[in-house]
Amino acid sequence: MSMVLYHYWRSSSSWRVRWALALKGLQPEYFHVGLLDGQVDQEPHLSRNPMGFVPVLKIGERYLVESMAIIEWLEETYPQPTLFPGDCFQRQKIRSLCEFINAGIQPIQNLSVLDHVSEDPKKRKEWASHFIRNGFKAYEKSIQAVAGKFSFGNQVTAADLFLVPQCYNAMRFGVNLQKEFSMLYQIYENSLQTSACKASEPNQFAP
Amino acid sequence: MSMVLYHYWRSSSSWRVRWALALKGLQPEYFHVGLLDGQVDQEPHLSRNPMGFVPVLKIGERYLVESMAIIEWLEETYPQPTLFPGDCFQRQKIRSLCEFINAGIQPIQNLSVLDHVSEDPKKRKEWASHFIRNGFKAYEKSIQAVAGKFSFGNQVTAADLFLVPQCYNAMRFGVNLQKEFSMLYQIYENSLQTSACKASEPNQFAP
Repeated sequence: MSMVLYHYWRSSSSWRVRWALALKGLQPEYFHVGLLDGQVDQEPHLSRNPMGFVPVLKIGERYLVESMAIIEWLEETYPQPTLFPGDCFQRQKIRSLCEFINAGIQPIQNLSVLDHVSEDPKKRKEWASHFIRNGFKAYEKSIQAVAGKFSFGNQVTAADLFLVPQCYNAMRFGVNLQKEFSMLYQIYENSLQTSACKASEPNQFAP
Repeated sequence: MSMVLYHYWRSSSSWRVRWALALKGLQPEYFHVGLLDGQVDQEPHLSRNPMGFVPVLKIGERYLVESMAIIEWLEETYPQPTLFPGDCFQRQKIRSLCEFINAGIQPIQNLSVLDHVSEDPKKRKEWASHFIRNGFKAYEKSIQAVAGKFSFGNQVTAADLFLVPQCYNAMRFGVNLQKEFSMLYQIYENSLQTSACKASEPNQFAP
């Protein structure tokens, strides 16, 4: 079946799915959807995703939306290598780390919310970095007992697919990751040394 | 193993998990954590969840956090009755509907964000209802082809566990659900006629 990823190069949610696809050894066709010029909020994109978000993964004639739900689908359909290793408690832990970012940080600092906060770049940055810092503090505490080279042990899991693109956003919003969140910075650095992360990072898809 | 749910009666994320537990026929011990008086942001709750959110499900000595990840754990551990029926594409659809609420609406209108928006009740209401309306429009469009009595056919799925508590929030924030989102209102009403939804709704846990 044909596979097309509708994405935006700098969207952290898009990076999550690009990375998952790369880890699973899948090579979709990539289709760029403009975020800053409002393409995401217009047809034909709204027919792909009424929420007006990227990424959207098109499989045959079906449009799959929401990065977490797409990644669960990828895991069910292409189980190896697994993104949710371990027993049911370990999978729960990994999913909760994903959601710290997916529901706890990213939505509050995305473009549609920032546009509602202020037009002033300084205020937008303050807002975004506040919620990122709060979430990252909780994330760091939550991985103390389980982290290795990555968020959960020494193998990349779904948690890293959410964390690392959020780290990229954090730095863009002025968070000094290396100084303030050294543990997360190390995971970010370790991840970027892996081929699937490197192949999916924003600069590889810059227009 | 012992099972304790740390929750707040009016928290929509808490209702999701209470409802899931009721559907799975599980009867945890309930422990109320104050949201408005800041108990969630203090010890001992921060040791249960560094994000400072409810619900938290304690299983033996483990604290499980994030409602979506808790519901996935419940589904893996107690598969019947299923909350994610159908094939992998149908499960993906249900999960994406969950995430529309879990990541797309609820985080932007939760207390910690509203406290950052304004102290003015009118401005808080405007902010919350704006993002709820946007999300609900997308949700309604997304279920046109699949809805029955509930979001996905004629059986309660995980999608309803997220939608219905969000409907409750919407009405509190002044959205006229019946008039503006008649399809969602009907699902809300149908759900409240089921025993598990009724048993888990906020009024049953009012202090």
